[in-house]
Amino acid sequence: METGYQVYELGAMDSWERHIGGRVPVPGRKFLEGELALASFGVSVNERKPGEEAGYWHDHHVVEELYLFLEGEGELALGTELLQVHAGTAVRVGPGVPRTWRCRPDSPIPLRWICVRGGGAPLAEIGMDSERPDLPMPWRA
Amino acid sequence: METGYQVYELGAMDSWERHIGGRVPVPGRKFLEGELALASFGVSVNERKPGEEAGYWHDHHVVEELYLFLEGEGELALGTELLQVHAGTAVRVGPGVPRTWRCRPDSPIPLRWICVRGGGAPLAEIGMDSERPDLPMPWRA
Repeated sequence: METGYQVYELGAMDSWERHIGGRVPVPGRKFLEGELALASFGVSVNERKPGEEAGYWHDHHVVEELYLFLEGEGELALGTELLQVHAGTAVRVGPGVPRTWRCRPDSPIPLRWICVRGGGAPLAEIGMDSERPDLPMPWRA
Repeated sequence: METGYQVYELGAMDSWERHIGGRVPVPGRKFLEGELALASFGVSVNERKPGEEAGYWHDHHVVEELYLFLEGEGELALGTELLQVHAGTAVRVGPGVPRTWRCRPDSPIPLRWICVRGGGAPLAEIGMDSERPDLPMPWRA
């Protein structure tokens, strides 16, 4: 594992919209492991504006994720459950649980959160372990 | 690894002072793995008020850490370097680097940040891998 330290200036939360990342390169996502030498876990910062949604479900075979919501009002769907999330909601999601999310249309500000993911081994060993099940968006049911 | 999901309501950032944790049980720290079934990595949320400091240095043998600062103005000492940190500063610190921090006395609000730690194996396998070297506080030099 790389020693020493690395610094990246991400910008304050209200500037996160300038980042663009992910398999779907929409604005409002940054993977910090792309800027720093993180080997053991990955960390993304995320923003969705009121009414914006992920647009896909995904699950993992091995990786567990922590979603830590910091600002805004959103919904996190976990299988057949739909959680209301807001500043300070922390959710661990284990392998095998399909998940998707949106910022509520009535949220006064964008939904902003951090997602940490890891699987008990260096991420490079785990590789791509996620799939995108074809499920309906729960807020349209 | 535990499947399913778990939810913990941490509270918004301006309520983090109510949490008390750590080997030194000062207010303003919460280890989320104590509330959720996180196995692969640990996540703490942290607050220090203007002028407050860690009070100790520490380093790790195996674990790497990510410090993601969200609010306030602070200083992060990494060996002989002293970084100025603020909202959006992300710092990966590898094994072996001694570190300590404070909220600057002139910060208009408390320093708040998230620390993620992991070592490429389940944390329970890694165990306690940190030490606290006896070094002077860099802002008093």
